[in-house]
Amino acid sequence: MAKKSPKKSSTTAPAALSKQDVKTLNSLRGLADEVVRSAERGRTPSLDIPSRSLSNVRYNKSKRFIEMGSGTNRRELFNLSQAKSYMQTLLVGSGCKQLLEQGKTTSIRGLYYLLKHTIEGSREETFDDQADCDPIIEDVEVSLDALREELHVYASNRGSMVGNILLNDSGDEIDCTRMGSGGYSIPSIVEPEIIKFAKCDAKFVLHVEKDTVWRRFNEDKFWQQYNCILTHGSGQPPRGVRRLLNRLHNELGLPVYCLLDNDPWGYYIYSVIKQGSINLAYESRRMAIPNARYIGLRSKDFTACGLSPSVTIRLNEQDVRRAKQIKTYPWFVNKKPWQQEIDLMLKNGFKLEVEALISKDISYVTEQYVPERLEEQDFLD
Amino acid sequence: MAKKSPKKSSTTAPAALSKQDVKTLNSLRGLADEVVRSAERGRTPSLDIPSRSLSNVRYNKSKRFIEMGSGTNRRELFNLSQAKSYMQTLLVGSGCKQLLEQGKTTSIRGLYYLLKHTIEGSREETFDDQADCDPIIEDVEVSLDALREELHVYASNRGSMVGNILLNDSGDEIDCTRMGSGGYSIPSIVEPEIIKFAKCDAKFVLHVEKDTVWRRFNEDKFWQQYNCILTHGSGQPPRGVRRLLNRLHNELGLPVYCLLDNDPWGYYIYSVIKQGSINLAYESRRMAIPNARYIGLRSKDFTACGLSPSVTIRLNEQDVRRAKQIKTYPWFVNKKPWQQEIDLMLKNGFKLEVEALISKDISYVTEQYVPERLEEQDFLD
Repeated sequence: MAKKSPKKSSTTAPAALSKQDVKTLNSLRGLADEVVRSAERGRTPSLDIPSRSLSNVRYNKSKRFIEMGSGTNRRELFNLSQAKSYMQTLLVGSGCKQLLEQGKTTSIRGLYYLLKHTIEGSREETFDDQADCDPIIEDVEVSLDALREELHVYASNRGSMVGNILLNDSGDEIDCTRMGSGGYSIPSIVEPEIIKFAKCDAKFVLHVEKDTVWRRFNEDKFWQQYNCILTHGSGQPPRGVRRLLNRLHNELGLPVYCLLDNDPWGYYIYSVIKQGSINLAYESRRMAIPNARYIGLRSKDFTACGLSPSVTIRLNEQDVRRAKQIKTYPWFVNKKPWQQEIDLMLKNGFKLEVEALISKDISYVTEQYVPERLEEQDFLD
Repeated sequence: MAKKSPKKSSTTAPAALSKQDVKTLNSLRGLADEVVRSAERGRTPSLDIPSRSLSNVRYNKSKRFIEMGSGTNRRELFNLSQAKSYMQTLLVGSGCKQLLEQGKTTSIRGLYYLLKHTIEGSREETFDDQADCDPIIEDVEVSLDALREELHVYASNRGSMVGNILLNDSGDEIDCTRMGSGGYSIPSIVEPEIIKFAKCDAKFVLHVEKDTVWRRFNEDKFWQQYNCILTHGSGQPPRGVRRLLNRLHNELGLPVYCLLDNDPWGYYIYSVIKQGSINLAYESRRMAIPNARYIGLRSKDFTACGLSPSVTIRLNEQDVRRAKQIKTYPWFVNKKPWQQEIDLMLKNGFKLEVEALISKDISYVTEQYVPERLEEQDFLD
């Protein structure tokens, strides 16, 4: 049954490189060339890493997403406090180069294991643990202006999709109208080299927070009736889902509606989809969807939908703190509807999950709530 | 864009019932008939709920899985301490009946919202929170000998599949050889009414613990080369994945190999796949796979594969405690290889993740480790 393969074939066989791979490889080589140039000039090899601290992150009002400023931190080889991270940065770069050349991808955990070893002639580890390695991966991303996925490193894969779209994923044709009850599992790397949009009849994307709600919409064939694409991201959507939504929006011109809970966590998910996150500000350009719309539960829905007090959930201290914080986000602070929304939630003293609508009827959300919101264009921006 | 649907259509339109649905509905009606019979005889309405306590769970040596004993707890309507849970049980039963009749499914969270309300003329809630409702769902499952999925209630959906198998999922043909990099997302309800096996050329199932490892196998087209089905369950596999593995094993006769980490958590995942879990002992019959094999990392692999100390992870106190506990499980206690395996891990003082093999080569696990274990039939049972 088990065929024996030649050992270590993977390290020797060079992979066919895509155009994007060639570009990323060139950036990686540029990183190494800098070291050589410095040495030749008799200078201390150093790297200027864009700073990922809060002080170097700002909301760009015209682009309408969070982006990084121009601040950088210098990392030098001949500096006791910087030598290790300097070497780690080059090590991560060489690991990514290996992945690209082999035409393989791995997780951040995999890259950590690929690079972890005891430095010869010492008792020093290249990385003590994963927490040592992760920020360095981000440093390399931001230095090269390359998404993690372009470096062949992927995040975990959560989230599914169905709807009126035909994809090509790694050479396989994926018809998202015929994916049964499970749906197409959205991979973590969805760059155009891997996922190509073949044909799309859908008119918009409905992104829901949870797989359980997604299932209701899929079971009711909502995407068929309303000619859309249906996605979920198992809570805060992982990078692959965010990037795919971004591509569906920008390349196919599809509006993106987000059906999220009426709680600070739902607001925050919306904020990340729309404006990007502070931690990963350097990715906003390819992840953020400033035109995304919030079609999720609203504080007014308790009255508007005539919900029972039974289905409300009291806000806890953390909820209140988070809500007040989100209220001051620069992209919410000047938006009256959002200020009113958050104020009313605080006044209500409770939050509402999308599932609370089940108390009206099991399919209220698919047959009434979302259709009415869409028809009346009643959403928050 | 948004078409308006008739309101509340779902509650009125009766669904076409499958054979299984008719059977489940009959069981639910039986539950209600008992109440009527008791009333007619002038007796206290009561339910005998099979006990799910540890003392009523045992390992069946001939069936080789964990099963429930015959102990039951009586729940009476006219008993102050039991009245609430008695009524909750019938309420959950009526909720499931509604789902079945409407031909809809929901999550345990959805069912909770469906049933939660303030009892008329009182300030009493049917359920105070989800934790109140979940055990009652289990009570109904076990009383009716119906899987949660047969009651139209589903768990969350994690896990993907690719490989040489053609399915029919809710009328859609799913070709698992053409699922790209993302794979087919395994739904939480995989009963034969929903998922039918159309054609299967695969010779075995390789179930891996994590999506990141699964991706390595998919990228290397392992399932093509070794003619198998590749699944993962994002850690402890959810019910849908366990049930699907069980069906692939029992209905198609496919051996199931589990590639898990060399740590107590990996051992425990194996134990649950193979023998079932104590909490859900009543499901073992349809979930457990007593012939599943452990092809995961072993304590001997540190030496056997020549791994570097860099990639080991020191056992913490909890690991040691769990390992000692698992060693005493009745299905491991008489198996010398398992005793040696766990003893060696304790002696090593460290654990090993599957990803640690990346330190040998990025595709060592797909090109060497698993093929060799399969060829030599070198696994734990």
